[in-house]
Amino acid sequence: MMPSATPPAVRLADVVGALGGELIGDPGIVISRLAPLESADAQALGFLAHPRYASQLATTTAACVIVAPAMRELALARGATIVTDDPYLYHARLTRWWAARHRAAAAAGVHPSAVVEPGAQIDPSACIGAFCYVGAGVVVSAGAIVGSHAHLGEGSHIGAQTRLAARVTLGDRCIVGQRGIVHSGAVIGADGFGFAPHQGQWEKIEQLGAVRIGDDVEIGANTCIDRGALDDTVIGDGVKFDNLIQVGHNVRIGDHCAFAGCVGIAGSAKIGKHCTAGGGAIILGHLELVDHVHVTAATVITRSILKPGQYSGLFPFDDNASWEKNAATLRQLHSLRERLRALEKKS
Amino acid sequence: MMPSATPPAVRLADVVGALGGELIGDPGIVISRLAPLESADAQALGFLAHPRYASQLATTTAACVIVAPAMRELALARGATIVTDDPYLYHARLTRWWAARHRAAAAAGVHPSAVVEPGAQIDPSACIGAFCYVGAGVVVSAGAIVGSHAHLGEGSHIGAQTRLAARVTLGDRCIVGQRGIVHSGAVIGADGFGFAPHQGQWEKIEQLGAVRIGDDVEIGANTCIDRGALDDTVIGDGVKFDNLIQVGHNVRIGDHCAFAGCVGIAGSAKIGKHCTAGGGAIILGHLELVDHVHVTAATVITRSILKPGQYSGLFPFDDNASWEKNAATLRQLHSLRERLRALEKKS
Amino acid sequence: MMPSATPPAVRLADVVGALGGELIGDPGIVISRLAPLESADAQALGFLAHPRYASQLATTTAACVIVAPAMRELALARGATIVTDDPYLYHARLTRWWAARHRAAAAAGVHPSAVVEPGAQIDPSACIGAFCYVGAGVVVSAGAIVGSHAHLGEGSHIGAQTRLAARVTLGDRCIVGQRGIVHSGAVIGADGFGFAPHQGQWEKIEQLGAVRIGDDVEIGANTCIDRGALDDTVIGDGVKFDNLIQVGHNVRIGDHCAFAGCVGIAGSAKIGKHCTAGGGAIILGHLELVDHVHVTAATVITRSILKPGQYSGLFPFDDNASWEKNAATLRQLHSLRERLRALEKKS
Repeated sequence: MMPSATPPAVRLADVVGALGGELIGDPGIVISRLAPLESADAQALGFLAHPRYASQLATTTAACVIVAPAMRELALARGATIVTDDPYLYHARLTRWWAARHRAAAAAGVHPSAVVEPGAQIDPSACIGAFCYVGAGVVVSAGAIVGSHAHLGEGSHIGAQTRLAARVTLGDRCIVGQRGIVHSGAVIGADGFGFAPHQGQWEKIEQLGAVRIGDDVEIGANTCIDRGALDDTVIGDGVKFDNLIQVGHNVRIGDHCAFAGCVGIAGSAKIGKHCTAGGGAIILGHLELVDHVHVTAATVITRSILKPGQYSGLFPFDDNASWEKNAATLRQLHSLRERLRALEKKS
Repeated sequence: MMPSATPPAVRLADVVGALGGELIGDPGIVISRLAPLESADAQALGFLAHPRYASQLATTTAACVIVAPAMRELALARGATIVTDDPYLYHARLTRWWAARHRAAAAAGVHPSAVVEPGAQIDPSACIGAFCYVGAGVVVSAGAIVGSHAHLGEGSHIGAQTRLAARVTLGDRCIVGQRGIVHSGAVIGADGFGFAPHQGQWEKIEQLGAVRIGDDVEIGANTCIDRGALDDTVIGDGVKFDNLIQVGHNVRIGDHCAFAGCVGIAGSAKIGKHCTAGGGAIILGHLELVDHVHVTAATVITRSILKPGQYSGLFPFDDNASWEKNAATLRQLHSLRERLRALEKKS
Repeated sequence: MMPSATPPAVRLADVVGALGGELIGDPGIVISRLAPLESADAQALGFLAHPRYASQLATTTAACVIVAPAMRELALARGATIVTDDPYLYHARLTRWWAARHRAAAAAGVHPSAVVEPGAQIDPSACIGAFCYVGAGVVVSAGAIVGSHAHLGEGSHIGAQTRLAARVTLGDRCIVGQRGIVHSGAVIGADGFGFAPHQGQWEKIEQLGAVRIGDDVEIGANTCIDRGALDDTVIGDGVKFDNLIQVGHNVRIGDHCAFAGCVGIAGSAKIGKHCTAGGGAIILGHLELVDHVHVTAATVITRSILKPGQYSGLFPFDDNASWEKNAATLRQLHSLRERLRALEKKS
């Protein structure tokens, strides 16, 4: 989890040995960091994500560049090159390989400052950080890492190799699958927002369900996933949540969705597989999105979407004076339509 | 606070004995969970929230269903039934009764790992969890429960029977009333956002007020309520906040309002009683909403509202191509109006 | 950090002695609080922020009022007055002077409950609160105050006089400059949201950069600033963030910007100096804003802005019935334009 003060040297031969790709150039070249092409220096390994940035090849001083086959000749003209079918994917794997080499492994065991209630089962290979509270009946599986100040509620369950950053709350009976990542401040299993109106007041509906999260899920900082009212809130495998996202009670999200920062998903929404939503989008409750629905940033989904595709609804920004004129007119839009109709009848 | 591993059996007779309603059917039927009608099994007690879901009565396998008088005959045709005037309200009370029976009571007392400064007054019946910091002069009243990792700032005050989940911050001198619930990650009493501009820079205005929260208030996970600049930020009785809500300094909110997730309320807004706002709505500052104003999700309130009612302002979403065409035209709306006027003059 | 139970008396002479301004009236008048004019009592010192509130001078019972030279005569007619060129700025400085007098200084030293890893450097004048975790290689500079339950990741750095409220996360290798303020629940240095799509799934891109924050920066409660993917996320000097703000990876923000609550700034956005954004505004990623760009609340910036000014794009709210009619028509706006064109051709 922690960067070593003096990371070991990496040669290009090590990179292709681990990750494949065709290396054209000196395999002994030493790399000391990964960098974007525009800021790469002679010790850096960079990648060309897209042909539209090809002009960077001419100017970068990177020690080596990862490119797609179509860029091969252009890249070779400047120096050492790794050719691979999907440079972005190669880069993703390179970052993981790099991080595994450069970050010190978390030491297994329970920090002496942690409080562990009787009946918790912590795998000997797991790591429990300082000031963690581990409730009765909690299960922490092999290789899991729990950062400092976690609250693991009674009967909660953390799958193998899952990593919680510092200051995470996992509520009673909530489950996180394997190989997950949960960032600081995330709250899994707070009460859903449920009240019965009665004589002008709100009577609480206790939230008796829990949260069940699949494998390979990432949950961003300060993101909240509420427990279900009666049944559980369910998150599929491979789902990725950015920071400050709200997921209401009883929501069901299919596998491999991805949600950018500040998204809100209201209670009982049912979202298919492979859906995405841009930053600040809101998906209202009690509706359904089929698989492969993509919601543009800041768009509000107010009814079910039964056909895959991209959906949008945001007010185009403008300089303030232009916006004011158009916005004022917008408030008369319906009457403009009536006037247009009247003209059409006359003409 | 914690579910018992083997919850005690509940008979229908116990339910109506505690909560009233007319039971038609065998009072000895044993219930082991509450469930939605669509997933209820033969050990489950369900409820019919609204006549439009009446078709579920024909298919549910629930042990018993709670219905309104109008649904009585339909419900009886399928088996055991509890008839009550407001099934949703009955359900709300049932969940609370159920939770009280099934959750182990938090043990009174201060966890040995907690730090309590001199001069704090903690009622012997209150519960202070692991790793709590309790500042000087704090008052924790009878029956209050403070979850793990709380920070209770100097001179703050928690009313009787109020429950703080894990990882809550209550700032210096801030007050939460009785029977409140505060979820994990909530921050009550951070500084309001106040700066005086000076020569292109921002000079901090220290926030000298506090936050005063009434009775029966619920505050969602990672929600923030800022302290006042000079006077206090004031939240009335019975107000319900969902997760990830921002309440600025000097805001005043009347009794029994409810705000869904991701709402933002800017500084010095004054909101009446019985108001609501849907998810992602924004209420700007230095304005006033009278009682019984309801703001639709994702709507931005930019000026005072002096008449009760429902207010909306969100861009209707569409497939991306349609949205693009309409959004582009929207940027010319004012000139369209001018062209329409010109035509009207000619015709 | 903590208010004293019996704050010392302040005379008007003390105020002008410390902060300047022309006092007209009895320098011996004792002030026991600062207050808005509308709620000020005879022990309160208030200020007139703007001539449009001049009528408050006639009704306030404040012991003394701070006014601009233009208001001098009007103010003198009611009693003791401090005349200064910029009353709002004077008030800002007064609140800071007041807070310094009335809040007990945090005691230097490391709370015995804190965990400090070997190799951390904590200045003897700094204060580390209860239950803090201080990683290896952390530097906490002179006069810095770290509130309870902080997580300071390995190699992170806190500048002189900077104050972290309770429950802050500062990730590995992240840097906060001098005289900063970070509020509760803020997360600096969580992973940026980066994944390579591959066969319908998301492959994580490890985030190898960090966060570098300048001097005099304030970061609100539960705000998140992600670490960079390769290079660092960089925040300039004097930037002010309100609560619940999301700042994505690789973002660069120039000096003296200010962002209101619930703003979202997506990855790789580059924002100039002296920019502002109102509450709930969203700035999408991979774009650039020049200096002195001001974004209206709830506006979504979808492309670069190369000219200073105010930019807006929000749907004007209306009563629900009017909104519904206009919103429905908006979905036909493009075809309305076509019909208008057809009419124009005919006429």
